[in-house]
Amino acid sequence: MAMRMSSLFLRTLRENPADAEVPSHRLLVRAGYVRRVSPGIYTWLPLGLRVFRRVEAVVREEMDAIGAQELLFPALLPREPYEASGRWEEYGPNVFRLKDRRGDDYLLGPTHEEMFTLAVKDLFSSYKDLPLSIYQIQTKYRDEARPRAGLLRGREFVMKDSYSFDLDEAGLDKSYQLHRDAYVRIFDRLGFHYVIVQAMAGAMGGSKSEEFLATAENGEDTYVHCPGCGYAANVEAVRVPVPDPVDASGVPAAHVEDTPDTPTIDTLVAHLEQAFPRGDGRAWTAADTLKNVVVTLVHPDGTREPLAIGVPGDRDVDEKRLAAQVEPAVVQAFDEKDFAAHPVLAKGYIGPGVLGSERSSGIRYLLDPRVVDGTAWVTGADETGRHVLDLVAGRDFTADGTIEAAEVRDGDACPSCGHALESARGIEMGHIFQLGRKYAEALDLQVLDENGKLRTVTMGSYGVGVSRAVACVAEGNHDELGLVWPRELAPADVHLVATGKDQAVYDYAEELTRALDARGVEVLLDDRKQASPGVKFKDAELVGVPTIVVVGRGLAEGTVEIKDRRSGERREVPSDGAVEEVLREIGRA
Amino acid sequence: MAMRMSSLFLRTLRENPADAEVPSHRLLVRAGYVRRVSPGIYTWLPLGLRVFRRVEAVVREEMDAIGAQELLFPALLPREPYEASGRWEEYGPNVFRLKDRRGDDYLLGPTHEEMFTLAVKDLFSSYKDLPLSIYQIQTKYRDEARPRAGLLRGREFVMKDSYSFDLDEAGLDKSYQLHRDAYVRIFDRLGFHYVIVQAMAGAMGGSKSEEFLATAENGEDTYVHCPGCGYAANVEAVRVPVPDPVDASGVPAAHVEDTPDTPTIDTLVAHLEQAFPRGDGRAWTAADTLKNVVVTLVHPDGTREPLAIGVPGDRDVDEKRLAAQVEPAVVQAFDEKDFAAHPVLAKGYIGPGVLGSERSSGIRYLLDPRVVDGTAWVTGADETGRHVLDLVAGRDFTADGTIEAAEVRDGDACPSCGHALESARGIEMGHIFQLGRKYAEALDLQVLDENGKLRTVTMGSYGVGVSRAVACVAEGNHDELGLVWPRELAPADVHLVATGKDQAVYDYAEELTRALDARGVEVLLDDRKQASPGVKFKDAELVGVPTIVVVGRGLAEGTVEIKDRRSGERREVPSDGAVEEVLREIGRA
Repeated sequence: MAMRMSSLFLRTLRENPADAEVPSHRLLVRAGYVRRVSPGIYTWLPLGLRVFRRVEAVVREEMDAIGAQELLFPALLPREPYEASGRWEEYGPNVFRLKDRRGDDYLLGPTHEEMFTLAVKDLFSSYKDLPLSIYQIQTKYRDEARPRAGLLRGREFVMKDSYSFDLDEAGLDKSYQLHRDAYVRIFDRLGFHYVIVQAMAGAMGGSKSEEFLATAENGEDTYVHCPGCGYAANVEAVRVPVPDPVDASGVPAAHVEDTPDTPTIDTLVAHLEQAFPRGDGRAWTAADTLKNVVVTLVHPDGTREPLAIGVPGDRDVDEKRLAAQVEPAVVQAFDEKDFAAHPVLAKGYIGPGVLGSERSSGIRYLLDPRVVDGTAWVTGADETGRHVLDLVAGRDFTADGTIEAAEVRDGDACPSCGHALESARGIEMGHIFQLGRKYAEALDLQVLDENGKLRTVTMGSYGVGVSRAVACVAEGNHDELGLVWPRELAPADVHLVATGKDQAVYDYAEELTRALDARGVEVLLDDRKQASPGVKFKDAELVGVPTIVVVGRGLAEGTVEIKDRRSGERREVPSDGAVEEVLREIGRA
Repeated sequence: MAMRMSSLFLRTLRENPADAEVPSHRLLVRAGYVRRVSPGIYTWLPLGLRVFRRVEAVVREEMDAIGAQELLFPALLPREPYEASGRWEEYGPNVFRLKDRRGDDYLLGPTHEEMFTLAVKDLFSSYKDLPLSIYQIQTKYRDEARPRAGLLRGREFVMKDSYSFDLDEAGLDKSYQLHRDAYVRIFDRLGFHYVIVQAMAGAMGGSKSEEFLATAENGEDTYVHCPGCGYAANVEAVRVPVPDPVDASGVPAAHVEDTPDTPTIDTLVAHLEQAFPRGDGRAWTAADTLKNVVVTLVHPDGTREPLAIGVPGDRDVDEKRLAAQVEPAVVQAFDEKDFAAHPVLAKGYIGPGVLGSERSSGIRYLLDPRVVDGTAWVTGADETGRHVLDLVAGRDFTADGTIEAAEVRDGDACPSCGHALESARGIEMGHIFQLGRKYAEALDLQVLDENGKLRTVTMGSYGVGVSRAVACVAEGNHDELGLVWPRELAPADVHLVATGKDQAVYDYAEELTRALDARGVEVLLDDRKQASPGVKFKDAELVGVPTIVVVGRGLAEGTVEIKDRRSGERREVPSDGAVEEVLREIGRA
């Protein structure tokens, strides 16, 4: 059914909204697709809802095509299943919690693993029922600390989430691959550039885990990719290639030295260079030092645990990588009070001498994988103003284990081929991973196998941000004038602009609209007589329907203009053959 | 795309769920359409979701057809707009409230008047933008005290709500009529029996208000209808025909009499008949007495106000009618503590002598409209064990006004034609009403009129319970074997049952499924080899697809059977012409 600008519930804005940081947010608000109600909470206006429904349809079609079955869980969920899985506590402040009139606890579902698992437990009981893939397209809620970028990080948003249920790993691999292929088709159809990167399986215990990232300069996620072999991973998932152990037989015994006023790596390196110049002409660098960072982990049950991390001094600890390694615990800074509680820690001069669960601090100590046996380091001597030199890993100190928490940098070696990695930014649009048996075990989802024995089911988890995808499409499809929708997702097939005061123009435009309507072409007709041609053209560029048809003065000579919104190319066509010309233009001839 | 019972996420139940009170609830759970998650909160399983989407599509088509524009508001809403309209308090315990991580107040939208009003204020500003009708199909939340009957009264449910915006009453009348006509088409298509009844406009201040009730023996709503003139109204909206004043010149002066142990109407009438027999042969009846009931109103701001209601002694006060009259205040019983606070009230013998804001109790006193001037009553004398006789309204007592709170009974006079009313029960499926300017005033929605003057917009409000409609369709379309869906709403067009062990049967059934699929017919294929024919037939009857095709032993002789689920009629058709026969059966030939 055609839409008419004279009555469409739409107001375009010439000014950018004050809170809009990214192009998609600016343009979706300015072009009248969405309206902010509260931080991270948006209304879909008619044009926006149309695009949203089209994105939803793409996702639904591809899920149906792999035999996934659609259902719909509630958004308001009781506490009990989340209690059973341990997530009622784990979620922390990111979940909206509430009580009903009887005082019972509820949450607004941020994800639905528990509900899917319990539904299968409720309905199915035999290996013959598997494999099964079920999905929903549903409104989800997360009480983000920093909702931002319009639809990109909202507090109320729509996701497609699916889960696969299989008896064994081979089945899970197959279900995973089916979803992966479907996701490739979905994101190909959505028309933005994306990469598939390896991701953390997290504390979930699964194995394969990949993210679909829309490439975007202002994306929140950083990933690295290898121009050599095609390896790509988000920074959380990058695994440092572990060097071979080093022969330390030539390294002298460790010796403690006075290094006054060297609480930072920079001051330390400068002091080393001045006080302990190396004989071989090599300058001291930050890479020769071992930096020990102490943080506090807050576990879901509220207990606090100090954790020490040792990294080469030329690298910082990466907050996101650390967070991914320790979740569901949350990382907090180790503050003055914490130092006061651990007097054995000499701030700025902390060393392996006191770190580790077997040593005097009792603090768990994890090392960057680069700190292999035989490597020699300059590091804190656990006294203010003193460092220890020639301290050799494995010979002079050990830790409780390793941790992948050091920052990843451009030029780091690819874990797959050794080539130099490059970093880029993206927006997480999809995540597929092998969840394994975590929820099936927590909620006791078992089925009888061929031998009549109970077996715990293994699950895969697959998500697409549907409302986020609308923003992502906009992010990848706009120019300085406005939005430029891919044809399949546009709110209309044709934006028909009637200009001037001549009634014949408006009559013709109405007639053309009706004729196109009859051929199944969705028309957005600008029939506003009071608006100037300039306003109408600006609105058409802003709204971003891929084909613009202009009916104006040319009509008297028997022509109308067809313009491609993306290329800007225009051509005049005879007004009496306009229907066929438009059909050809939009690829429906 | 065809569904196969061998893999469909479905389990039918032979037993009724323990908590299911009504047929739709029993059958939708047993046939695997929905699953309860929490009181009044349900999951839509694949078959249920299909029916739900079809009901939704009917509603959407008819709304689009009258030019209403679809948008979508969030469900999680900030407090401020509801504060401005006064409803943050008014809602009381019926709304789910929560706080975000910053401590800001939110609610889960039970209705969206405020959001619609603010959206129009945000986007539109001129009379030229009107009329406007906008709608959404959206998940809503109400913290019902007694969620019941499955989808019929849920706490999370889906509604279509639309609002019209007009400059004046004539415009509102037109928008109202457009919606009314659309609702008639919607409910006609949904295939259950319904009535349109006059309803209360409530405290909203509008004028026209009508409800669409699905007729149902176990419905929660009672309505009356007149076989004489067709008048119909829900009991809240019934207006008592006010009798003409009576000439009381022949009535003796009021006189107080001892009536020991007569605290109830029954005991009073018995005592009157024994102690004060009337000379004219007429027996005393409850209708000769005036019963005064005192209740406590709790206003939204928490203040408590006693209210006295005088009704003829043969009628009770109707809770729903009273509630509708006093909302947004809530009615509570007048308890012992309240009586203690008002010693002037003699329990069981309360009379007009102390009631009314001008009298000694100071309690506001409202009379049933039947208590017209000149009517004589026996009523309490405000002393235990005493009543006053021949007390004449207007002559001996007055009140603060009238109230429509007395029960409506079968046989009461039709307010329109005087014929005897009949009562029946129904389920509220739709409500349309002229909201007027309440929200536009509260939220300052004004537009410029033709003369450049600001005018407050007038609104109409129109709702359909979409998830409730699924239950309502089931309520009106089932038999003892299971559900019987109307063709337009069924989860599939054809339920194809393959029976027996013969592989040729299953091959043929697959082939027929593919052929029907290619013709756009949605097939639910029962391809389970391990299930007995009896189980398959029982499931087919329970699931309720309107056309059942059975492929079995007859195939060897070249026949398959087509069965109409509703009538039970069956016919054999040649297996090689089955596609065309099925198309004819389902009305697509």
